[in-house]
Amino acid sequence: MKLSHLVFAVSALAAGATSYAQQAPKAEDQIRYRQSIMNVMGRQFGMLSAMAKGDAPYNKDAAVKAAALAETLSALPGPLFGPGLDKGAPTKAGTKIWSEPDKFKAALEKMQGEMKKLPAAAGDVATLKTAVGEIGKACKGCHDDYREKEFRN
Amino acid sequence: MKLSHLVFAVSALAAGATSYAQQAPKAEDQIRYRQSIMNVMGRQFGMLSAMAKGDAPYNKDAAVKAAALAETLSALPGPLFGPGLDKGAPTKAGTKIWSEPDKFKAALEKMQGEMKKLPAAAGDVATLKTAVGEIGKACKGCHDDYREKEFRN
Repeated sequence: MKLSHLVFAVSALAAGATSYAQQAPKAEDQIRYRQSIMNVMGRQFGMLSAMAKGDAPYNKDAAVKAAALAETLSALPGPLFGPGLDKGAPTKAGTKIWSEPDKFKAALEKMQGEMKKLPAAAGDVATLKTAVGEIGKACKGCHDDYREKEFRN
Repeated sequence: MKLSHLVFAVSALAAGATSYAQQAPKAEDQIRYRQSIMNVMGRQFGMLSAMAKGDAPYNKDAAVKAAALAETLSALPGPLFGPGLDKGAPTKAGTKIWSEPDKFKAALEKMQGEMKKLPAAAGDVATLKTAVGEIGKACKGCHDDYREKEFRN
């Protein structure tokens, strides 16, 4: 077992341990949690992207709040793509996530790295636009490689 | 139309406007966003509840982070229970939410008020325990009255 696999495995167990006490959570619940995190993060990004493109009026307070929430959520899904969470509920997560975990981890960390810059960038529409562009590339890159078009079981 | 209805309606439109630019989002997407928010908030609360009960080891850093995220998310769902969002995707949201919006709004605000105390309380296991107890009551009260046991369409 490679170190990255071990780290993922341990993190997955830890995520379980802290979510549902001693009893490991069901894969189905972990997959739904993963999807919920991605959905809420995506919605914050959607708001910020609309502001950055001028499709929605820029609102500094709303932008800063959405950016902080998106950045917080971006740190959570790693362990939820860990061993044993490739199936258990309908998912668009590509099986390549589990067949090339090191490459996936790098793509996830690229997104997380860009997200870390978002809260500071959100306070001004010009810096927000730059940050949204970089995050959008990281999202698309990972989705192109690791997200299926349709749900699979 | 009562003022609270109007406020809910306007907030729902605003939520739409800021999420997906000018085009109002589909009820299905808004319901899934609502469910995702409640899921992620519930998972943070689950971690904190396990720590408060001693079912999981208390970890101050993890507790403070989970508390901040739960409190942030608790502020979001109001407009997502607004007019037109009672159906459009499988949901456990009770129809009473839409037939008695003032009572539901009060129950939601009770939870939000308790959640506001959570971040400050999470830094110590004794104060966390008290806060988790009060939030748990607010969650249960609202779920007993306004959440169905099974999904409905």
